[in-house]
Amino acid sequence: MGGGKLSQQIIQKMIVPQFKNDLLDQLHDGAVFTLDGERLAFSTDSYVVNPIFFPGGDIGELAVNGTVNDLAMCGARPLFLSAAFIIEEGFPMDDLWRVIISMQSAATKAGVKVVTGDTKVVDRGKGDKIFINTSGIGVVDSGIQIGSRNARVGDVVIISGPIAVHGIAIMSVREGLEFESQIESDTASLNHLVMLMLAASKNIHVLRDPTRGGVASSLNEIAESSRVGIKIDEEKIPITEPVRGACEILGLDPLYVANEGKLIAFVSPGDAESVLSVMRQNPLGKESAVIGEVVGDHPGTVVMRTSIGGSRVVDMLSGEQLPRIC
Amino acid sequence: MGGGKLSQQIIQKMIVPQFKNDLLDQLHDGAVFTLDGERLAFSTDSYVVNPIFFPGGDIGELAVNGTVNDLAMCGARPLFLSAAFIIEEGFPMDDLWRVIISMQSAATKAGVKVVTGDTKVVDRGKGDKIFINTSGIGVVDSGIQIGSRNARVGDVVIISGPIAVHGIAIMSVREGLEFESQIESDTASLNHLVMLMLAASKNIHVLRDPTRGGVASSLNEIAESSRVGIKIDEEKIPITEPVRGACEILGLDPLYVANEGKLIAFVSPGDAESVLSVMRQNPLGKESAVIGEVVGDHPGTVVMRTSIGGSRVVDMLSGEQLPRIC
Repeated sequence: MGGGKLSQQIIQKMIVPQFKNDLLDQLHDGAVFTLDGERLAFSTDSYVVNPIFFPGGDIGELAVNGTVNDLAMCGARPLFLSAAFIIEEGFPMDDLWRVIISMQSAATKAGVKVVTGDTKVVDRGKGDKIFINTSGIGVVDSGIQIGSRNARVGDVVIISGPIAVHGIAIMSVREGLEFESQIESDTASLNHLVMLMLAASKNIHVLRDPTRGGVASSLNEIAESSRVGIKIDEEKIPITEPVRGACEILGLDPLYVANEGKLIAFVSPGDAESVLSVMRQNPLGKESAVIGEVVGDHPGTVVMRTSIGGSRVVDMLSGEQLPRIC
Repeated sequence: MGGGKLSQQIIQKMIVPQFKNDLLDQLHDGAVFTLDGERLAFSTDSYVVNPIFFPGGDIGELAVNGTVNDLAMCGARPLFLSAAFIIEEGFPMDDLWRVIISMQSAATKAGVKVVTGDTKVVDRGKGDKIFINTSGIGVVDSGIQIGSRNARVGDVVIISGPIAVHGIAIMSVREGLEFESQIESDTASLNHLVMLMLAASKNIHVLRDPTRGGVASSLNEIAESSRVGIKIDEEKIPITEPVRGACEILGLDPLYVANEGKLIAFVSPGDAESVLSVMRQNPLGKESAVIGEVVGDHPGTVVMRTSIGGSRVVDMLSGEQLPRIC
């Protein structure tokens, strides 16, 4: 969705200043505020993924995991979710059931409760099967200071596993691509993994799930917010062969493709080993890898050492945004 | 939207049991739970009103006021909102601005902060201009016990002003009806009015804003939840002449037409006068009136003494649900 089309990023950048207040999460996944001494995280996302059922998941599971992850990336323990449905007239009841059951199962897995909801029905042709909004509330325990402004020179950049899986799972279905083995979305709730990481280290400075816009966009946002440079190493970025192949066929740079079950952590160098160790013991982090570090040079910019030995700037906006990927 | 069509009510009744947990707000406007000793209210609503600009308001103002009111009806002080937009490709930027500015203005009026948000764009024909979800968090002060199960025999039923205004404002535009004076939506945030009422009495048992389904549906839900009978008096229900006339032309029973700036309160008989008095001093409650009472007879049922002297059961489902009224 490049070119002159209405861009989500542009809109977001126009909307944010209008609501400007000290709590608004300009570039983070959720807002964190204090309520009678307790720090709460609050986050919202609408899910419009197309198709609604895809290899490895569906819109319902995505809607729960996505908002759980946004809270977890604030360092919060996610507790409560809302679920609001906009359903197109004629959407089959059976499909609705599949989605609801999948949401409930994802909520149970993540240990969160869906406590409030809403349903709206729109006429045929005024929606697209089903859109789901989830908002979530979590508690940030004391001592935790995680935020996109907190990256420090020397921090080690860790990713929890192979990139670009969700986006490719969706695009493969849309484009009718067939591979030897089907590529399944990595959608998963990362809150339990984050809790293990936080127990292992008090020096995790930034957490981010690289969803829309992929790893490249997340790293750029962090470099900008923290006014630091980030250096990554192409060779070290985990990616599976099928995903790499699919990216080539589809003409996509995997750095810009959405993930739904991965996180990036910025950790003090002294704690990197112990954080990496707990991550690798968890099924969701067993392929965790160090992909780079925070540097004092080129603040605001992400630079990648390429596999052929050169280095290039990883831009914010190169590559297309994939529409309706989540 | 009667007949065999997909009904919001039916879906809601199917979804609720799936997510069943002790906190889920089965019939109320929001969930209330305790977090480290603090009682919080949490609510969500998607707004799909058509047209998005209507006499007296727009979808943005409605989205803020609606969720603020849902929290207020839990007896909560609304504090924080999220705002999530699903925008159809091609939606004019100018209209988006109008909506955003209107949201910000409504938030300021209500004294709440929009702290987190999300934007998704869908292709033309896969949405309808703009849908907005707002979720909200509020604090329930100690001593306040408001809930749809709390109506007691003897309680006085108060309404804060003339009914059916919002629904008729929307339907008039859709049907191209013209009246001597335009009927404007009553959309307003009721949280300040509620705070005045709560300061005047600790014996307010139920608060409800009769939106979708109107006064009749709200009263029926309360009668059912509290296992009490409710008796109302047709003559006492405030309604303006233009709205009454429009209802006749449109073939609508005003008791089932949505309000967006009115509340119903169930109050101990001893406190009714003082509550009514503070309500009438507020611009949003100046036409407040007692419309009935809670009785020990016919639990679960709402009975109305009609203006011609008879009495009839006010059913839950009689009359059509108006689609996309909010």
